[in-house]
Amino acid sequence: MNGAESLVHTLLGCGVEVCFANPGTSEMHFVAALDRIPGMKCVLGLQENVVTGMADGYWRMAGKPAATLLHCGPGLANGLANLHNARRARSGIVNCVGDQATYHRIFDAPLTADTEGLARSVSAWMRTSTKAKDVGADAAAAVQAARTSPGQIATMILPSDTCWDEGGVVAQPLPVPEPQAADPLAIRNAARILREKKNVLILLGGKALGEGGQALAWRVSQATGAKLMTEGSNGRLARGQGRLPLERVPYPADQAIKALSWVEHLILVNSRAPIGFFAYPGKPSKHYPENAEVHVLTRYEQDAEAALRALCEELNAPAVPMPDVGKRPERARGAPTPEGLARTLGALMPEDAIIADESVSFGRGFFSETFGAPKHDWMQVCGGAIGGGMPQATGAAIGGGGRRVINLQADGSAMYTVQSLWTQAREKLPVTTVLLSNRKYQILLGEYQNVGANPGRTAMDMLDLGNPDLDWVKMANGMGVEGARATTLDQVGDLMAQSFAQKGPFLIELMI
Amino acid sequence: MNGAESLVHTLLGCGVEVCFANPGTSEMHFVAALDRIPGMKCVLGLQENVVTGMADGYWRMAGKPAATLLHCGPGLANGLANLHNARRARSGIVNCVGDQATYHRIFDAPLTADTEGLARSVSAWMRTSTKAKDVGADAAAAVQAARTSPGQIATMILPSDTCWDEGGVVAQPLPVPEPQAADPLAIRNAARILREKKNVLILLGGKALGEGGQALAWRVSQATGAKLMTEGSNGRLARGQGRLPLERVPYPADQAIKALSWVEHLILVNSRAPIGFFAYPGKPSKHYPENAEVHVLTRYEQDAEAALRALCEELNAPAVPMPDVGKRPERARGAPTPEGLARTLGALMPEDAIIADESVSFGRGFFSETFGAPKHDWMQVCGGAIGGGMPQATGAAIGGGGRRVINLQADGSAMYTVQSLWTQAREKLPVTTVLLSNRKYQILLGEYQNVGANPGRTAMDMLDLGNPDLDWVKMANGMGVEGARATTLDQVGDLMAQSFAQKGPFLIELMI
Repeated sequence: MNGAESLVHTLLGCGVEVCFANPGTSEMHFVAALDRIPGMKCVLGLQENVVTGMADGYWRMAGKPAATLLHCGPGLANGLANLHNARRARSGIVNCVGDQATYHRIFDAPLTADTEGLARSVSAWMRTSTKAKDVGADAAAAVQAARTSPGQIATMILPSDTCWDEGGVVAQPLPVPEPQAADPLAIRNAARILREKKNVLILLGGKALGEGGQALAWRVSQATGAKLMTEGSNGRLARGQGRLPLERVPYPADQAIKALSWVEHLILVNSRAPIGFFAYPGKPSKHYPENAEVHVLTRYEQDAEAALRALCEELNAPAVPMPDVGKRPERARGAPTPEGLARTLGALMPEDAIIADESVSFGRGFFSETFGAPKHDWMQVCGGAIGGGMPQATGAAIGGGGRRVINLQADGSAMYTVQSLWTQAREKLPVTTVLLSNRKYQILLGEYQNVGANPGRTAMDMLDLGNPDLDWVKMANGMGVEGARATTLDQVGDLMAQSFAQKGPFLIELMI
Repeated sequence: MNGAESLVHTLLGCGVEVCFANPGTSEMHFVAALDRIPGMKCVLGLQENVVTGMADGYWRMAGKPAATLLHCGPGLANGLANLHNARRARSGIVNCVGDQATYHRIFDAPLTADTEGLARSVSAWMRTSTKAKDVGADAAAAVQAARTSPGQIATMILPSDTCWDEGGVVAQPLPVPEPQAADPLAIRNAARILREKKNVLILLGGKALGEGGQALAWRVSQATGAKLMTEGSNGRLARGQGRLPLERVPYPADQAIKALSWVEHLILVNSRAPIGFFAYPGKPSKHYPENAEVHVLTRYEQDAEAALRALCEELNAPAVPMPDVGKRPERARGAPTPEGLARTLGALMPEDAIIADESVSFGRGFFSETFGAPKHDWMQVCGGAIGGGMPQATGAAIGGGGRRVINLQADGSAMYTVQSLWTQAREKLPVTTVLLSNRKYQILLGEYQNVGANPGRTAMDMLDLGNPDLDWVKMANGMGVEGARATTLDQVGDLMAQSFAQKGPFLIELMI
């Protein structure tokens, strides 16, 4: 058995069932082993940032890691942006990267790069295998690391001779540690704050955003009057009927500061105290009041649901029915608006839909209009690296077991990883892309105006996506995805309904 | 004057005239300064690997560095693969990367990343500015580094407050050091080898590949009987009438080893001794005979042309006419073959065309059939990171002053940076893309067979680009580039001729 075969057997034995791949020459023995050993579903992405973004989306829905298969050096580099997003979403990925053969590295062949240096910045765990006999054990350790709460990127670097040499040894799965329990002191402290203080905000993140966590948080809120919110970006948020109508901390600094101005006590549950995505001249980095007290109930790696349950007990918070989130919204008509699109989405989305949201500027109004939709999960790009939405939608469709994925996708970001559409077509995935075509980097135009100027010709050359206009239907067709253009909410609604009723992907270019 | 304004003034004063850009929020003050201060041509790429690849192509033709403008962290990561290629081609780039404000970095905002760690692996020079007053001086040092022989990547990291703070100081250009002279001992040693030994190969790279270097190398060769070759991949090679019919060291290991089997003495001129792109089981890493002696005439940073001139003098090598490279080839007809396409290209290319070659597997037969073409320059992807060809073609068109660029482009690689087409359309660039559509990663299928197996279903899932087929004409049209499909050499010839006669870009999808 060669090293590559021990790798595939070990991954399968550890419950890794999907490999998102874009291999190169140095990975051919890994490809051959995947070919010989049945059991791994291999999904090709036509650029590595598609591959890594799919692995992120897969984790969020499947709740277990996929493997990637990336080409050495620059192949890994191409996938770093979506590994960054995955790291910020705290997604687990077994990130397999090929490399030059151990004895060939000294020659500094053209594709040789500082693989470890590149991997380090996004990986919680990293190891370069040095012998075929170690590859199995390294793989088992990588899966363990990827599954360790809350989910981590574990990068295995595989010099090609460790794959082709004989002597591979299949390793048994290593135990995955349970999420750490919250500090009992943290629970008692949070209970004291909630009992004694006013103007308390509980900021929910991570596992606290699931159905179970929300129900417990609601009991705490109802018993104490504390307000509940989520961070600005969330990896996976359960929403719709039977879930909480949670508001997010707004993205724009002024709105965030205003929304949090009342807060005197901030309790963090798998979340971080809100700070600016960026700094702005004369504005604070922290978006919560300077004199607010910050209390940590659970850190990312800790068990939020258990902590909320303990908090309910400490507070004697009784079970309560979930709040009424209102009726299912109705389809909107006429010219596209964020709110109208959200209502149309809420009216039409099938039960258990997955929303992959990289709507950037246009999407800021989507949330409140979809509280009454059927139950669904909402995913966002957590690291701010644009180009996450389409690959995450693609991977979520593979991890979602047939659930419909609706990708609300800004055009500027979509161009980053447009190759995702081809994988959707190849795998016949149930992904409906609503491509929000405003033909500009709208968020940057807003930021530019914050600088205090109207953009001139040179600035517009860098902020405008028109001239020439992108034709998204043609591009989708060119990659095997059916598509159509909509200019009204009526049309986008009709096309959504049509696409939900058919198998496979569909792209709607909505002119906004 | 703020830091960003001092940056733009300094870059312009140092002769940097083009900025390839994909900015984000942290770079808005840089964008505003570019808008306010006339003189810099700003070219938008819709993904950062397009941006950095354009800067590489620009340098190769313009012979001076462009600036880039990349978004912080993941923005840089997206552009690393073509920075890797540029580093291997020894192209000079002033690589400007935004970053979080100095005081905001401690908050680890979502887009915060290890910018220096990412930049380090591709940069010969790197500096993070810390104060507005330093930005000008840092920029002047960056340009100096980028222009230092043979051409280097100089990365400036610009925290956003260093751009928006007042106190910027414009810096004067710093002197660019002349390329180092070759060691006189190296010249005398090479002369001795050439006089006394048989089976001598002079391997030409870098500046030795220009018209002047070739003429001098030819004198040496004619006077001594030494053979001349180039490395497998070259940044810019002068070819066609009046230039040498230079063969490259072949890419496949067996062919390379065979082609070099006769060599007893290898003289390196701005080149490296041939080694494998990758290692293969049971094959040597070095592609030249184990007992061949390697002699360095010039290292990369040294002046190859001066060294060759000194060598001619040392050898008393007389001036000789350049060799007859044969007649201009004639158009080929019928089914596409590499040789037929090359002859058609040679028959039709305009004088002074620029060939951007990322033809990978299909292109290995192009060279010998185009020796008799009109004079032209041939560019290759030097670092092996696929996705270099289209951006390099785009940047070369901007740096080439109106010269026609012909991009011989494999389909698998093209999908990596397909967004380049949009920039070609926006800038109305004279780029003719011959898209070699074989609908598979052909090079990997060959490598797979080297592993000793025929690919099964799972392997083909990772090596085949069909299912669904990519429609390149639709994709090009979707990005504003006119295109047409050809299935014969007659058709591709007609379409080439048509595109050479019109302004702007054109894509020919050639079914091979």
